[in-house]
Amino acid sequence: MKILDGRKLSNIIKEEIKKEVSKRSSKKKKIPHLAAVLVGNDGASLTYVGSKVRSCKQIGFLSTLIHLKSDITEKKLISELDKLNQNPSIDGYIVQLPLPNHINEERVLLAVDPRKDVDGFHPTNFGRMVLELPSFIPATPFGIIEIIKRYKIETSGKNCLVIGRSNIVGRPISILMSQKVSYGNATVTLAHSRTKNLKELTLKSDIIISALGIPEFLKVDMVKEKVVVIDVGITRVSDKNNSKGYIIKGDVDYVNVSKKASYITPVPGGVGPMTIAMLLQNTLLACKRKD
Amino acid sequence: MKILDGRKLSNIIKEEIKKEVSKRSSKKKKIPHLAAVLVGNDGASLTYVGSKVRSCKQIGFLSTLIHLKSDITEKKLISELDKLNQNPSIDGYIVQLPLPNHINEERVLLAVDPRKDVDGFHPTNFGRMVLELPSFIPATPFGIIEIIKRYKIETSGKNCLVIGRSNIVGRPISILMSQKVSYGNATVTLAHSRTKNLKELTLKSDIIISALGIPEFLKVDMVKEKVVVIDVGITRVSDKNNSKGYIIKGDVDYVNVSKKASYITPVPGGVGPMTIAMLLQNTLLACKRKD
Repeated sequence: MKILDGRKLSNIIKEEIKKEVSKRSSKKKKIPHLAAVLVGNDGASLTYVGSKVRSCKQIGFLSTLIHLKSDITEKKLISELDKLNQNPSIDGYIVQLPLPNHINEERVLLAVDPRKDVDGFHPTNFGRMVLELPSFIPATPFGIIEIIKRYKIETSGKNCLVIGRSNIVGRPISILMSQKVSYGNATVTLAHSRTKNLKELTLKSDIIISALGIPEFLKVDMVKEKVVVIDVGITRVSDKNNSKGYIIKGDVDYVNVSKKASYITPVPGGVGPMTIAMLLQNTLLACKRKD
Repeated sequence: MKILDGRKLSNIIKEEIKKEVSKRSSKKKKIPHLAAVLVGNDGASLTYVGSKVRSCKQIGFLSTLIHLKSDITEKKLISELDKLNQNPSIDGYIVQLPLPNHINEERVLLAVDPRKDVDGFHPTNFGRMVLELPSFIPATPFGIIEIIKRYKIETSGKNCLVIGRSNIVGRPISILMSQKVSYGNATVTLAHSRTKNLKELTLKSDIIISALGIPEFLKVDMVKEKVVVIDVGITRVSDKNNSKGYIIKGDVDYVNVSKKASYITPVPGGVGPMTIAMLLQNTLLACKRKD
């Protein structure tokens, strides 16, 4: 069994980006600049945005945090996005989700200029991704693809089961894995809440990508020998023995499934750390497209 | 076994649209106007476009045929599309494919205003469809969905196999069938040229949608009892006994598979006739969105 070490891989990717930024700098080319829009003071959101800003500094990107009050109107928020759309210094930006209830998330995401939509959530990018045109692939599925590429996991003709049909993970990765590309060409089945025969499906699968959010749902008796398991689940489970009061659990019963798997991502330290690395990769891409 | 009669259903839909147009007319509302852009004199294309124009007349739509010479430059073609984009009388238009070799199809399709893209081929519409926002669903998958709805075929939790991953049929229908909607919620597997165990998959499937283009490929020993079969294949097979010199064959060995199926589309007379009906439906929708 081989651990798909997302932490290590994300550091390698960040190092690569850092080198490229440094080269750009010596050639007097534009330095990538990522902005993050945060509305309100949600604890988890503050942590995520903070970590994105820190990563920018680490690799030599410029970064801007736009921290807005939780009672900002939707109109005012959209006008802030419009400033970012117009600002030539900003290559890409993200709007940290979730937004307060009085703001329509859909309208806000549609206000992001697709050329700066480094989260890849705008329908124009989504459509371009499906049609295999240049786009921004959302960070989590992009991270999964990168794990598959770098660990040279064979996917062509393999049975791949994606569990969960969310627009940010399950849906896009199910599409990407079945495209006619070197990291794709898998026969993909997309399972979800209405799927009736899940164990039958998991037992037939060469590759399982789980984005369900149910801790330790995938048990060892549900998978076949040599399965490749990519665990996107991140659930906080309360744990009094931990100083934070919780621990992070994935969708997979790692201790047991890892004994049977050929490759497996741990949680934490698997897909999670890849997400920020791929957001930075998208920002670099946005900047290079303007060269 | 019940035949899914696409010819009959397409006539019902055209009648419904005709009534709505007549109502709009009596209320002095705008009459839907579809334009078709045809480049060159390809025989099949002339037939298709002619049939679209005739259908418009039948149901009371306005229609415009823009017939351009095969040696038109890409730039000139795109400027023609721009006129259509600007023309408020035109609600929707299609560019008949294929285009001559010297013209880049991708650049041309990207020049269509997504609000007038009644073929649903523009990435913005594709992305909106995937993200379940208002869009234009491409006519063939839209026709399949309409067959499923009108014949009240149960899809929730069913194993649905889509064979073929083209951007105009296989890919979009695989997405639609797995969405959280009344006609969806199926557990969808998308098979294609790299799939290794196709017979194993077809035998497990409650619903098979085949868009492969190999005549009579799906045999009776490949399907289970009570399967629902939707045949999108349309291949010309030479036949000296036929006055045209060919007959149309689907992907399915209809004579034998129909004995085992619960529902099946014939070819011709199944999905094919639905395509034009749904193009007209999209044009009506484009017109109504401006009300």
